[in-house]
Formats: sequence, C-alpha cells, structure tokens
Amino acid sequence: MEQLTIVKVGGAIVESDDSLNNLLSKFSNIPGHKLLVHGGGRSATKMAERLGISQTMIGGRRVTDAETLQVVTMVYGGLVNKHIVALLQTKGVNALGLTGADLNLIQSHKRPLKKVKMDDGTVQEVDYGFVGDIDKVNADILGNLISQGVVPVLSPLTHDCMGSMLNTNADTIASETAIALAQRFNVRLMYCFEKNGVLLNAEDDESVIPSITKNEFTSLVERGIVQGGMLPKLENSFSAIDAGVKTVIITNANNIDIEDAGTHLSK
Amino acid sequence: MEQLTIVKVGGAIVESDDSLNNLLSKFSNIPGHKLLVHGGGRSATKMAERLGISQTMIGGRRVTDAETLQVVTMVYGGLVNKHIVALLQTKGVNALGLTGADLNLIQSHKRPLKKVKMDDGTVQEVDYGFVGDIDKVNADILGNLISQGVVPVLSPLTHDCMGSMLNTNADTIASETAIALAQRFNVRLMYCFEKNGVLLNAEDDESVIPSITKNEFTSLVERGIVQGGMLPKLENSFSAIDAGVKTVIITNANNIDIEDAGTHLSK
Repeated sequence: MEQLTIVKVGGAIVESDDSLNNLLSKFSNIPGHKLLVHGGGRSATKMAERLGISQTMIGGRRVTDAETLQVVTMVYGGLVNKHIVALLQTKGVNALGLTGADLNLIQSHKRPLKKVKMDDGTVQEVDYGFVGDIDKVNADILGNLISQGVVPVLSPLTHDCMGSMLNTNADTIASETAIALAQRFNVRLMYCFEKNGVLLNAEDDESVIPSITKNEFTSLVERGIVQGGMLPKLENSFSAIDAGVKTVIITNANNIDIEDAGTHLSK
Repeated sequence: MEQLTIVKVGGAIVESDDSLNNLLSKFSNIPGHKLLVHGGGRSATKMAERLGISQTMIGGRRVTDAETLQVVTMVYGGLVNKHIVALLQTKGVNALGLTGADLNLIQSHKRPLKKVKMDDGTVQEVDYGFVGDIDKVNADILGNLISQGVVPVLSPLTHDCMGSMLNTNADTIASETAIALAQRFNVRLMYCFEKNGVLLNAEDDESVIPSITKNEFTSLVERGIVQGGMLPKLENSFSAIDAGVKTVIITNANNIDIEDAGTHLSK
C-alpha cells in the first residue's frame, strides 16, 4: 500500500500568516500522498465578534446557532480554506479545498442533546445546535482523488444530507478520515502542536518520548506521566490505530517534514 | 461529443432561499453533464455593510480592496458556494464547490489600472484592486472531473498563482469556462435572467425571439431591437460562439429545464 500523510493543523497556526506559510512550506515537502485538515476557530470567533454574534463555548466546543453556522461556513469553508489552497498552489501542491458536502464526502447528523458536566460541577443537557457527529467518510471518492495526485484540504464542515452544513471538530475529521482511508493507504496521521511531542517531563520540551505502543501508553497513564488534555488526545489516537491507522504522530508544527520528530504512536 | 450544460445564476436568485431552491431543482433535472457558475454580489455587499467595510462600485463592478477581498472570498467561496453544494446533494447531484485556486483551475492576473468613463462623463484611471482578469481555464482537469460525473459549482473567484485570490466576474467565468470546455464537449451556455429571453418588444415578456444567428443579431442591432444592457451580453455570447461554444441560451431562471425555452444564440 502507498503511504498517505494526514496533517491536522489548528486555529492558532492558521491565523498567523507567517506561521501558516511556514507550515505549508513544510507540508509541501512531505513526500508522497498527503491531505491537510485545518481548524479556524479563532478566526470564526473574531468574525462573530465583528458581526455582533455572541458565542457560547461549552467544554471547549462551540454552540452553533443558525447565525454562527453561517459564520463558520464562510470562515472555515471560504476565508481560511481558500487562503490555504491559494498558498499551497504557489508551492507546487495540487490542492483542492473541500467540505463534507462537496462530493458528499463526509456525512453527519446533528448532535442530539447531550448531558455535559459544566465548569461549576452541575450536569446540564446541552443543545450544541448545528454541530455534526460524523456518520461516514466516503473513502472511495476521497481515495480516488488522492490517487490522482490531488491534495485535499478539508475544512471542519460536514453536511447532514438534508441541505444543511454542520460544524464539525477538525480533530475528529482528521481521525475519521484517517480511519476510512486506512483500507487503501498506509496512513500516518499527524497532529500539529505547539510542543515537540508527548513529554516525559511537562516542563522540559526536550524530554520527548519518541515512540509509544499501546501497552506503554497504559503504563504511562498509570505512572501519571500522561494526564490532562493529552489523555483524550492519545486515547483517540490509539482508537484510530485500533481501527487500522498505521501511525499517529504528535509533533511540533515546525517539525512535520522531519521523519522521526515528535512522538510516534503505534500498536 | 457529449453535451455539457453550463448555467450561470446571478446574485438575486442565489439570495432568496425559495428562488434558489427552485432553480437548483430545475438544474438537477437537466440531463447529461452540467456545471453551475454562481454570483453572490448582493450577499457580499450586505456582509461588507455589516462589517462596516464601505463598498465602491464603478460601472457596476466592485472595487475590491484587501478587506473586500476577504469578504468576497468568504461569502462567495464559503457561504454561497457551500449552501448551493449542500442543497444540490439533497437533489442527487454530485456537486463539488470550486474556486479558481482549487486544482489551479482558473488562473488570472490582477487587473491593471483602467481608464473608465464615470457617471459624470469624465474619464478616470481606476484601480479595481484585487479583481482578476482570466488568463487560463484548466480545461483538462475540469473536463476530467465532469467526465467522472462530478458537477462543478464555480464561485466567482480565481487566483493569481502567487498566493492571492482574485474577485472575478461570474459571467466571464461562465463564458471562459464554456470556451475552454468546447474542445471536449458540445457546450450549451445558459444565462439565467429575470426575463423570458431576448424580447422583440421590451414591454412584452411574451415576445421572446426563439433563436438568433450572428447575421440576425447584426440586423437586430441595426433595427434598434437589441440595445442597452442586452447589447454587451449578446456580443459576449457571440464571442463565445465564435470560440467554439455551440449554443448560448438566454432564458428565465424558471425555465432552465425546458429544452426550447428562451432565446437560443448560435452561428
């Protein structure tokens, strides 16, 4: 099977022209098939503010009312996505900007009401609005495009097959896309990050753990080395590995073109 | 050669949910290969107003400064384009939203300073800003997608191959795309319109001229029947026909699925 590298890049990097340009140059240097998934939450929040649309975040997730859906559709699908595509074209990358609605690539359903533990400790039923939970990634169509030399640039938007776009977490799009494409490619899924990888000592950015297997992961959790926000990230990564993704790499955005940088997770 | 129908739909239809939905249903009924080009100027103007970005129009064309480029990129490439794509998917159309930057489909250059006759009769040199004049439509890539059953939905944005999107007239995108694809398909180019076609009597919407050849066009101009805004529209249409487009149809948006409705222009 041919190799496919899927890179997920978050809002902070996307937002600054210098860091974005730097990241895209490194992305263009990755050999073989590749795919980019981008966020853009900070830009969406800024645009919503300028338009006087108040934003509610619960547990780091955006509550997406009808007006906010318009904001994220235009910011993620238009502003951020086309900016990235135009820049990649200057770097010789045959980029194609996509949402889940295009070619019916990613089908989702509106998230049902969810019981969520709030910051004050109470549990409330939350309606996230136009937020999509993924049902299916159309791996055949996406795989065919990639095999033809196309580099998909996915924005964090899916559709409900009933005419509505849905706001969808970019990390989830990256992992679900990686899982769907694992039947066809040796998939390396790479999460870009402001740190150099998973650290043995949170205070020391040089203490990167170069590789973690699933058994080692269990032991790292027991020893309290992996904790906090890193825990769900790694749990999700190992779920993707269980579902057929070859390697998940957690690395600094500056190092995505360095083969053995960051922390490599595998079976 | 297989038939390809290219439909250009303007801002007024795109803006109202009812008229857009109606148009897209009729579009989905058109047999064979098809492609949609949309505008969105009114939505862009509204969004610019909400963001407090003042707009300058000269001779019906938008002067596109850096902030306005951001507005049209997000409104055309995100909001309008993805709304259309999501609706077409519900109608069984394998829609793919595109700008000229995606797959490097439409290359353009920033329009140079232009001498323009202003409303007050004076001639001034105008800088339209980030407005693109088309250099090339990549007919091979677009044609391959269409042959694979994809229905491209083009927003009025191109790129300069140096990292910038450019605002580009949707009528021009439709005609340049039609010309580029005429080597590969029997192209019918259809301009949607609020009237039923080219009228013998401007006051009578039933007086549609069903067909006009180039010779008849010259005579209609001499007799003063074709005048005003219709004149450049027909001149452009006959240029497209001279360049290989089989038929240009000027018709009511309500009639795009009726084979012989509107005015058919041909050699």
